[in-house]
Amino acid sequence: MSTENFDAVDIIRIKRDRGTLTSEQIDWTIDAYTRGVIAEEQMAALNMAILLNGMDRAEISRWTTAMINSGERMDFSALRTPGGAVKPTADKHSTGGVGDKITLPLAPLVAVFGVAVPQLSGRGLGHTGGTLDKLESIPGWQASLSNAALMDQLADCGAVICAAGSGLAPADKKLYALRDVTGTVEAIPLIASSIMSKKIAEGTGTLVLDVKVGSGAFMKDEADARELARTMVGLGTDAGVRTVALLTNMQTPLGRTAGNAIEVEESVEVLAGGGPADVVELTVKLAGEMLAGAGIHDADPAAALADGRAMDVWNRMISAQGGDPAAALPVARESETVYAQADGVLAELDALSVGVAAWRLGAGRARREDQVQAGAGVRMHAKPGEVVRRGQPLMTLLTDTPDRFGRALEALEGATTITAEGSRSGQRLILDRIAE
Amino acid sequence: MSTENFDAVDIIRIKRDRGTLTSEQIDWTIDAYTRGVIAEEQMAALNMAILLNGMDRAEISRWTTAMINSGERMDFSALRTPGGAVKPTADKHSTGGVGDKITLPLAPLVAVFGVAVPQLSGRGLGHTGGTLDKLESIPGWQASLSNAALMDQLADCGAVICAAGSGLAPADKKLYALRDVTGTVEAIPLIASSIMSKKIAEGTGTLVLDVKVGSGAFMKDEADARELARTMVGLGTDAGVRTVALLTNMQTPLGRTAGNAIEVEESVEVLAGGGPADVVELTVKLAGEMLAGAGIHDADPAAALADGRAMDVWNRMISAQGGDPAAALPVARESETVYAQADGVLAELDALSVGVAAWRLGAGRARREDQVQAGAGVRMHAKPGEVVRRGQPLMTLLTDTPDRFGRALEALEGATTITAEGSRSGQRLILDRIAE
Repeated sequence: MSTENFDAVDIIRIKRDRGTLTSEQIDWTIDAYTRGVIAEEQMAALNMAILLNGMDRAEISRWTTAMINSGERMDFSALRTPGGAVKPTADKHSTGGVGDKITLPLAPLVAVFGVAVPQLSGRGLGHTGGTLDKLESIPGWQASLSNAALMDQLADCGAVICAAGSGLAPADKKLYALRDVTGTVEAIPLIASSIMSKKIAEGTGTLVLDVKVGSGAFMKDEADARELARTMVGLGTDAGVRTVALLTNMQTPLGRTAGNAIEVEESVEVLAGGGPADVVELTVKLAGEMLAGAGIHDADPAAALADGRAMDVWNRMISAQGGDPAAALPVARESETVYAQADGVLAELDALSVGVAAWRLGAGRARREDQVQAGAGVRMHAKPGEVVRRGQPLMTLLTDTPDRFGRALEALEGATTITAEGSRSGQRLILDRIAE
Repeated sequence: MSTENFDAVDIIRIKRDRGTLTSEQIDWTIDAYTRGVIAEEQMAALNMAILLNGMDRAEISRWTTAMINSGERMDFSALRTPGGAVKPTADKHSTGGVGDKITLPLAPLVAVFGVAVPQLSGRGLGHTGGTLDKLESIPGWQASLSNAALMDQLADCGAVICAAGSGLAPADKKLYALRDVTGTVEAIPLIASSIMSKKIAEGTGTLVLDVKVGSGAFMKDEADARELARTMVGLGTDAGVRTVALLTNMQTPLGRTAGNAIEVEESVEVLAGGGPADVVELTVKLAGEMLAGAGIHDADPAAALADGRAMDVWNRMISAQGGDPAAALPVARESETVYAQADGVLAELDALSVGVAAWRLGAGRARREDQVQAGAGVRMHAKPGEVVRRGQPLMTLLTDTPDRFGRALEALEGATTITAEGSRSGQRLILDRIAE
């Protein structure tokens, strides 16, 4: 049967009636949707059927491949080691969390060991921050690079964090906009294929997935996060990418800052051998996974943070994109402090509440076309498991526009719980590791 | 909460997650969709969620009411009996079958007994014929009437068969077009509310539903047909309409003709006291149900067919709409005969095959804008249970365009089964009666 002989209604009916789509049907569906032959309302009905009736591994894999084939595919095989071999590449993707600045120290850290890190990133929408928004608070830094400039920078510095071009998986772009308005974002096959189509099209050899679970994450439930992780690991493996996923805690923010410039500042502390323990732990763990995937098992990433080698790569990486790594970062004009109301141990600091507060203060955007404030966000002076005293500052809220404090404080109502000292216990950061 | 405060994505999510929509949410959904505030792709996703997750009786009832409220509602309370009381009204709706000309003899037959029959009808699409297409084969007959002309004719003749105005349930019209292209036609809550919104808006006091089941029907499966019938009876009852449904056999065509002019001819035979036994049986049974709903329990509809009273109303009804009941009906220019290949009993004559053949011969339309041929169709010379001899004509195919014979004959391949005489048995016509 020719791939041009399908009918959109027949395809919808198959999935509606719990059938399995063939490879040819999936290829035709993605291509016809990209060309406008399948109408938005038809794709919406199909997406809802997929959400409710699922897709099997072969279907999700083919769906992902078809989305990759809707656009260009990057190729880093021209990058060589000093010995002339093809240079290994590794990339990390986080499903998004509050205070998640890990990409910033991680990319230069992995590059220290001779692995190229082409980290194509996005902007934030809603309560989770975007890597590009954070880096744009560095004076002069540019997110957009041509493919040629990207290759040059990878050859020179070994690491690049830049905006993903619109040529990668255009079908996914169109599909995501549709899912957003039709209540079909939450389908695991569609989430997994959306993420993985872009990551596979980027051409990395190794991919490490940081799948967040908890109040500040897209997946609130560990079982859902685990299924998403397993699905994505399967898709990467089927596409020939060495893929592993970590399930990590997003019940409380990562580190002690949630915003843009303040997260860059904290990342630089980590690159200088300091910084919050949880940010260091996750950065080192993810670096180890990326290096292992690239065949490097004897590296000591923690040492490369402590001795300044990662900072050297960071400085070159920021400079290569026009940024001044030594420049002062923007500071918010106004601040407001939240104080502890009791003595005890901080038992909870809710990630979603802090994320929404930072968003409302101006660190994030409500619509794609909004501008973010470089200096806005939330500084946290205590993290879960730490002893606090009544009247001690718990958080500092930062913004250029003080009329935003009211709604940010509303978001933080009930965000913290202080209990008697006896219940002192930290939360586990890394919940599981998922590989094939 | 104001009815203007809902969000389409929230409504979709509720149904996606197997929740129940409130009356206010349903009212808002239908109104916002009619106004274009809910986009086609959003309604498509909601329809698929309804198809897969269902709606409860209260939801379907409210959905139907909201569709009725999207347009005008007819009112026949001005019609009076000679004694001055409000005249009872009764209407019949068939879910569609092959050879289903029952409305033609039925409407004048019921009017004989002083019940007004405002039979608003549609055109055919696909393999099932349309009542208006059949009547339009009568020279001069007009399907469209103003509301004033409709009321006058009901007062004068007691019966009218005409086109439903576009003012009835416009939300249903828009929704049906969407369901047609998104694989969501088959949702029982949506089918039931589509039919019943129009029938309730028509303002009839009694409604008899003829729910077809079998190969030539929309519902192939008796359990589905039964659920649809029960749902529609519930909706009518909730709206204050006396509603009953008959489940009837559509495994084989009704009568011995499937087409337009040839079905009018057969209907006139029934009105003259003759005609095929199955058409007479179903006409009399449905008339009895309509009359009982209108409070008339002592009528003898069979006698009113036999003695010409129903024919008198038919002649006046056709004349009132410009038709000449005495005029010769159009005849197809070309014919082709299908012969029996063996001696025995005709065990099967498949309704769908005959319907598709008649459609392909020109009796039906593939697209809404197509014209139908008045003379085209299939005459059946034997029905299941009858003895046939090898070489005897089984069917005559009729069309003005002989290049259509080939595809019509293809549709009839395997449509008939002839078995040994021992297996002779008819098929039950009326399978069940469903009331509250």
